[in-house]
Amino acid sequence: MTLTSTSGAPEPDVELAAEVFDTLAKHTSDGIGITRASYGEGEQFAHDLIAGIAEREGLSVNTDVAGNLYITLAGTDPREKASVIGSHLDSVPAGGNFDGAAGVLAGLATVVTWKRHGFRGKGDVVVMAIRAEESPWFPYSYIGSKAAFGILPSAALDIARSDTGRSLADHMSELGFDPDSVRKGVPYLRAQDLRAYIELHIEQGPVLVERQLPVGTVSGIRGSFRYREAKVLGEYAHSGAVPRAYRHDAVAAAADLVTRLNTNWRLLEDAGRDLTVTVGKFSTNAQVHAFSKVAGEVDFCLDVRSHSSEVLEEMKKNVRTHVADLERDYAVRFELGPITGSEPAHMSRDLLAVLSRSYRALGVPYFEMACGAGHDAAVFAQQGVPTAMLLVRNEGGSHNPGERMDIDDFIVAVRVLAHGLSQIA
Amino acid sequence: MTLTSTSGAPEPDVELAAEVFDTLAKHTSDGIGITRASYGEGEQFAHDLIAGIAEREGLSVNTDVAGNLYITLAGTDPREKASVIGSHLDSVPAGGNFDGAAGVLAGLATVVTWKRHGFRGKGDVVVMAIRAEESPWFPYSYIGSKAAFGILPSAALDIARSDTGRSLADHMSELGFDPDSVRKGVPYLRAQDLRAYIELHIEQGPVLVERQLPVGTVSGIRGSFRYREAKVLGEYAHSGAVPRAYRHDAVAAAADLVTRLNTNWRLLEDAGRDLTVTVGKFSTNAQVHAFSKVAGEVDFCLDVRSHSSEVLEEMKKNVRTHVADLERDYAVRFELGPITGSEPAHMSRDLLAVLSRSYRALGVPYFEMACGAGHDAAVFAQQGVPTAMLLVRNEGGSHNPGERMDIDDFIVAVRVLAHGLSQIA
Repeated sequence: MTLTSTSGAPEPDVELAAEVFDTLAKHTSDGIGITRASYGEGEQFAHDLIAGIAEREGLSVNTDVAGNLYITLAGTDPREKASVIGSHLDSVPAGGNFDGAAGVLAGLATVVTWKRHGFRGKGDVVVMAIRAEESPWFPYSYIGSKAAFGILPSAALDIARSDTGRSLADHMSELGFDPDSVRKGVPYLRAQDLRAYIELHIEQGPVLVERQLPVGTVSGIRGSFRYREAKVLGEYAHSGAVPRAYRHDAVAAAADLVTRLNTNWRLLEDAGRDLTVTVGKFSTNAQVHAFSKVAGEVDFCLDVRSHSSEVLEEMKKNVRTHVADLERDYAVRFELGPITGSEPAHMSRDLLAVLSRSYRALGVPYFEMACGAGHDAAVFAQQGVPTAMLLVRNEGGSHNPGERMDIDDFIVAVRVLAHGLSQIA
Repeated sequence: MTLTSTSGAPEPDVELAAEVFDTLAKHTSDGIGITRASYGEGEQFAHDLIAGIAEREGLSVNTDVAGNLYITLAGTDPREKASVIGSHLDSVPAGGNFDGAAGVLAGLATVVTWKRHGFRGKGDVVVMAIRAEESPWFPYSYIGSKAAFGILPSAALDIARSDTGRSLADHMSELGFDPDSVRKGVPYLRAQDLRAYIELHIEQGPVLVERQLPVGTVSGIRGSFRYREAKVLGEYAHSGAVPRAYRHDAVAAAADLVTRLNTNWRLLEDAGRDLTVTVGKFSTNAQVHAFSKVAGEVDFCLDVRSHSSEVLEEMKKNVRTHVADLERDYAVRFELGPITGSEPAHMSRDLLAVLSRSYRALGVPYFEMACGAGHDAAVFAQQGVPTAMLLVRNEGGSHNPGERMDIDDFIVAVRVLAHGLSQIA
């Protein structure tokens, strides 16, 4: 497999990555899927495994105060900026083996091969294994990458892990890291020292499968706003005995909101705007509801994502307008609860231009697509680091044991990644 | 209170009813509300209490093979048809004291007073305490009244009571009744022997409260169709990574159905048609749903009621059309499950004319209204018995401990009932 490509850099030894994938699957299986809890046993196993391989290969290995792992292949010129290839090693509970790990192993395969062949960039090439990206454990986004830049809010250290009930700080300390320095905002990375951040990740939607493409390049990461705990409050009433004019029907009002937001989505999409609108939870109260009762209460959530801050603002306004109209029309009250969200992240056009040349050099079709899932790449982009992402075709979705990345697709993506890296590092 | 009205009949002694309401509340309270299970302890207590009073007053007391109770004040002419005043004595779990019992006690107060004063009709006046009207116990409608006419399907005898798990037949036997004869369809009542059936019941909606009227007359009992266990099946997917074109969003499809049916309702109502449309349950699967997942499954129910069989047919057609459209538009599958329902029941215009004259004679404003809840009166009407219902103003809805009937409103309703009865019996 190790051939010299047109870039002059040796091609990454993907066999190494394939073996590590197998070892990870064997040691972090939970019987149903893969479980690598953030700052838990599975994540730590993955960090130890990869650090050990890097050390045996003679690469330099470091961790920061939050436990992020950095494997460095030193460049020829210490004044040059470093290029980072990174992703995360944790997984959701009963998730898949490739979500996160693929990006770290793509980087590892590249630097190990380069090291073995004595190939170096001018600047350092750093493979970064990021902590705690999957929010089911600590319900907060981008803990590891924010801590690396010293921008994790102190309050995040007090969040309890969903399974243990123990705080993030406690879990960090247990593994020998330094939550007090994380609290103080001690940075390990600074944007001005970095030439690029590139993250390879499995696609979590069906676009590449549908288009029969092995790999895609991310044009931008969608920002979002979310109401995770919204409610409609009406009044329970007899389904046969209470006329429309006297009803306070929470289901009718909430359903109408969903339908109105879906209409907004369709119209914006028809106008060429990027958007997703999802109500993933919508439930009447099982303690009280009945087929012969008008529903007095609905719990629901709303997740709106777009590349465009302008579209997000427009949808926030739509939500407000609809809620005011529906409260009047249905004589109910909405309690939307706290709003959370993130800004859209823009990828570096210069870096995308480099990558598109690598696709061409390798004879791989170039395709740009929106990325709707959040990734640590968003943090790097927001810090001003030129950022790009490659998505690898994946059947079966993600965050479940059924994710299926074909290793041949992974090979194509790693070749593109390594080729692009050799042009900038 | 016992005065002679313009009808010549003595006015019912409502003090008696008020005392029985108190005794019932004291003996069938469950700590939260009133519980009188069908063929259970609370219902039997009520039957025994009322039969005992009737016997002490020298009225004749009978039961049929299903345990319905009949208290008869014999008429002067054995060839005349009987008039029945009836309702049920069971309650929903943690329900109210008046739902059902009000109709039986209205009849009891009337016949006891008439008996004490030696007043009789030409035909018999029969107060009927009907068994098992509330379907939370045995999920089947009108068990007692259907059994009285010998039309309860044999299969209904095998239905298990929701709390005990024991069959209806078993519960009947336990109380000394004869489920085998019920199975064989042995009738106690025949429509051709009955002059009228009149049921007094608390209103279960807000109409009389809103209109500031103590009592209303039912124009007809709504029929219905119901899907109690409907489903939409889609596919779970990442809320940010899966574009609209690739979604199978069960919440979006189900919400759109609710909205379309509500639009149908509004248009039919604007056209003067009688209708209620209720989706009382609507739930994503709590084991699987998440704010960042497109929902792959929704459970819901649908209850549609109308006076008009034609409107019910039109709404059934609307449901079918919408489901076909939505399955295509949202790439989901609907499983509506079994459909159940009942025919609308028409009240006797002749009987309503008699009652309207009684209102006028007593100076009570006459008001006709749709009845959306089901009642045993529907069975009598469908058997061809001239039927009427009086609804008494009630705050706080029904089927909950908060129902609030003012005894002064009850007195007005019983006076109207007794006056009307004196004109026909």
